Amino acid sequence: MSKMPKTAVTPTREEDYPEWYQQVVKAADLAENSPVRGCMVIKPWGYAIWESIQKVLDQKFKETGHVNAYFPLLIPLSFLEKEAEHVEGFAKECAVVTHHRLEARPDGEGLVPAGELEEPLIIRPTSETIIGAMYAKWVQSYRDLPILINQWANVMRWEMRTRLFLRTAEFLWQEGHTAHATAQEAREETMRMLDVYADFAENYMAMPVIKGEKTAEERFPGAVDTYTIEAMMQDRKALQAGTSHFLGQNFAKSSGIKFQNKDGIEEYAWTTSWGVSTRLIGGLIMTHADDDGLVLPPRLAPLHVVILPIYRTDEERSTVLAYADRLKREITATSYSLGAVTAQIDDRDLRGGEKMWQHVKKGVPIRIEIGPRDVAADAVFMGRRDQPAKEKKTVPRAEFVQTVGLILDHIQQNLYDRALKHRVENTRLIDNLDDFLQYFTPKSEDKPEIHGGFALAHCSPGPDVTERLKELKVTARCIPLAAEAESGICIFTGRPSAQRIIFAKSY
Amino acid sequence: MSKMPKTAVTPTREEDYPEWYQQVVKAADLAENSPVRGCMVIKPWGYAIWESIQKVLDQKFKETGHVNAYFPLLIPLSFLEKEAEHVEGFAKECAVVTHHRLEARPDGEGLVPAGELEEPLIIRPTSETIIGAMYAKWVQSYRDLPILINQWANVMRWEMRTRLFLRTAEFLWQEGHTAHATAQEAREETMRMLDVYADFAENYMAMPVIKGEKTAEERFPGAVDTYTIEAMMQDRKALQAGTSHFLGQNFAKSSGIKFQNKDGIEEYAWTTSWGVSTRLIGGLIMTHADDDGLVLPPRLAPLHVVILPIYRTDEERSTVLAYADRLKREITATSYSLGAVTAQIDDRDLRGGEKMWQHVKKGVPIRIEIGPRDVAADAVFMGRRDQPAKEKKTVPRAEFVQTVGLILDHIQQNLYDRALKHRVENTRLIDNLDDFLQYFTPKSEDKPEIHGGFALAHCSPGPDVTERLKELKVTARCIPLAAEAESGICIFTGRPSAQRIIFAKSY
Repeated sequence: MSKMPKTAVTPTREEDYPEWYQQVVKAADLAENSPVRGCMVIKPWGYAIWESIQKVLDQKFKETGHVNAYFPLLIPLSFLEKEAEHVEGFAKECAVVTHHRLEARPDGEGLVPAGELEEPLIIRPTSETIIGAMYAKWVQSYRDLPILINQWANVMRWEMRTRLFLRTAEFLWQEGHTAHATAQEAREETMRMLDVYADFAENYMAMPVIKGEKTAEERFPGAVDTYTIEAMMQDRKALQAGTSHFLGQNFAKSSGIKFQNKDGIEEYAWTTSWGVSTRLIGGLIMTHADDDGLVLPPRLAPLHVVILPIYRTDEERSTVLAYADRLKREITATSYSLGAVTAQIDDRDLRGGEKMWQHVKKGVPIRIEIGPRDVAADAVFMGRRDQPAKEKKTVPRAEFVQTVGLILDHIQQNLYDRALKHRVENTRLIDNLDDFLQYFTPKSEDKPEIHGGFALAHCSPGPDVTERLKELKVTARCIPLAAEAESGICIFTGRPSAQRIIFAKSY
Repeated sequence: MSKMPKTAVTPTREEDYPEWYQQVVKAADLAENSPVRGCMVIKPWGYAIWESIQKVLDQKFKETGHVNAYFPLLIPLSFLEKEAEHVEGFAKECAVVTHHRLEARPDGEGLVPAGELEEPLIIRPTSETIIGAMYAKWVQSYRDLPILINQWANVMRWEMRTRLFLRTAEFLWQEGHTAHATAQEAREETMRMLDVYADFAENYMAMPVIKGEKTAEERFPGAVDTYTIEAMMQDRKALQAGTSHFLGQNFAKSSGIKFQNKDGIEEYAWTTSWGVSTRLIGGLIMTHADDDGLVLPPRLAPLHVVILPIYRTDEERSTVLAYADRLKREITATSYSLGAVTAQIDDRDLRGGEKMWQHVKKGVPIRIEIGPRDVAADAVFMGRRDQPAKEKKTVPRAEFVQTVGLILDHIQQNLYDRALKHRVENTRLIDNLDDFLQYFTPKSEDKPEIHGGFALAHCSPGPDVTERLKELKVTARCIPLAAEAESGICIFTGRPSAQRIIFAKSY
């Protein structure tokens, strides 16, 4: 006997969190696996969310003085070999182009690679090396600095175990690459972009984040310092949502980015890089989605209000559609804190219930059902996606139109507050190893993902600590920037520690 | 003794057209070759033009009911083998991924490809096959149709002889892929998108185009019909600026895109594809640029008005900058036919002449120089990029602010009119082979690019005609859609012909 599901998505978060995630992606029609191992297809609704993300970030990059450009997809193998640590980190699992032609098989059946390249080419896993080679050509004098360029691009890192949005072989991202005349200017840029990411995460994704510095072990390969924004997902794991790197002169030296300073002396430039990717959509899902599917913060929702006309007869149809049409025009003439409110009428030939649930699963912030009785009462029957799907209410039309912008802003704030509350409730100061081990021990064997959450503990990082953490499947997420200095004792080694570090299981 | 150049770009179009093109790309700082064979770097000014193009087209695609999505970069070799003609056309020169890892060489010096793939993967030269495979999964019933999806992406076709923007191994483009329940609907879509391209070319790029159908020999591999917009460049060669393909059921059959129609009978879908690329920027250059560099139509210009302050003393500086700043605010509060007018003050520490010429070379539509005397006279000293660089005039400030939008619209129209006049003057009806040969014979040996232009001649296409044209390095560009039926005799074969075809040398 099968149990009737009470939620639009099965299993629920409680029942099987990882599988729930996959089912939300499917239910919201965001993406799916392709026939190419590890590569996903981002479907229209998922891509529309990415377009919302791009639009906001692109504007913020331009407001902070950056311009966009485009660099080659392929990187000569020798370029990747230039920066020693970078090789270690990136040159391992990547797509290698070795031929530039296909020829018919001798037996005429199918095609085989031909035209072997003298030097293999790598599909960019990140573009520091190729962009560095160009900057080396462009920079001669301090007058050529700073260079403040961003690129929107696809990148590829061969992954054996993939998960839609969170870890895929190919993904979409932006990568900022800047070069400066002084270390201070480059450091300021690194922090400025970290702030842009944090602002975006909190005020657009409604996803609270902790800004922090990575420990040496967790740094970007080749960076002097890596800064991160870390968010807590609903299963209490951490998601690294964006990183900003101060690269010092490491890449300038390996790429030869040199300039004459004002005194005519040749120096290496100071560079930074920073990026966020389609992984953010994974973070968005795991921060807000519930057992009925996706929940979208209004500031990134491709659609704010969906209007669902309900009728039986032709006569009802024309009355209801006319009312819906007028309502749509009234709604789209209003605005909320980020701009115009968007609305669409869904008059597809589907059962009303099925249609409504599609929009619930897709996370549309506000659903409006309009039947003949609503028309007669000059009212709308409204459901908010941040409230249970069945908690709907009738609102006078005029009142709804007048308040729709405020409701959207309220949903946005509500989602943020909920996520923040979740993080606060699941973050603990921990002062000894026993408590730490206890905190990260799964609460039951069949739910290995349920554990404590974020732990703030004193730690003096080093290879010995890293080794210990690896056994526990816990990582040092970051040294929070906002924390005050507090001396203590490393819970792993007994060494003195100057500050607490955030530890968590992570994606 | 070297001759002082009288133009900002050398050589001039007259002296050496192909080299002039390369020098304009360089002078306007649009793009340059990268260390990766055949792949270009699109520099910020070039990319900003691409962003303008994307913004307008993306809006037009959405207005015509399309949504964006993203499909994998890599295509399994077997997919390319499915559609016979498509293989012929595309599977030849392409980048082949054969390995997914790099390993240290046994001697420790450098890295070598490892982890050979079971099936090679091809970097997409175009995405019909991989998108078709997804549509086959998504489509079951007529209710799932139409699918109207566009993708903005990078693609790669291995090219031996490349030219920036016009022919590069990697390029950026959009590719629309739609699936329909009926042939008629798919045909309508094909023509709708051709019209979108023609509208974009003429009303935004200010580039007149001829809409037409390709002859069988020039069709997209696998298409039933290919439609094109063809533009005439300043050297009288043709540029294919965009194509829209009616694919019939060819790809639906090879990919298995089947649906149950309303009567419950299984049918193959009817598909289309259509695309334009960064090649458009090459077309923009060759349509409008002159011997002083790029000339941008205002509707695609990343910047409309550049304000150049000129001063010597600190006192002059503060007066001039205050005036410039106020002027900028006044200008940006006005609009032209497409939206807000954009303006920037260029106060970089460079010689005034050098700075002004940079903006001439970059094609900024309007340049304003402001010195103390202009401030005193409450005037601006204005130069228009569609007029000779030295033809500048003083205009009262208030008058300029009031008319700047009109001036931009006038420049846009003027560029279009000039280009149309050029095409009309260099298009001829030709009725016999001698005239045809004469028309396409270079006027002198050292300038092989100077020839007649577009020829409209009767032709009954076939392999024999194609062979003959190949010798002449002339191609059948298209059968113009606007032309009236007119019976005649093929100038190559004497066979009867129902209509004239446009012939030209081409890019």
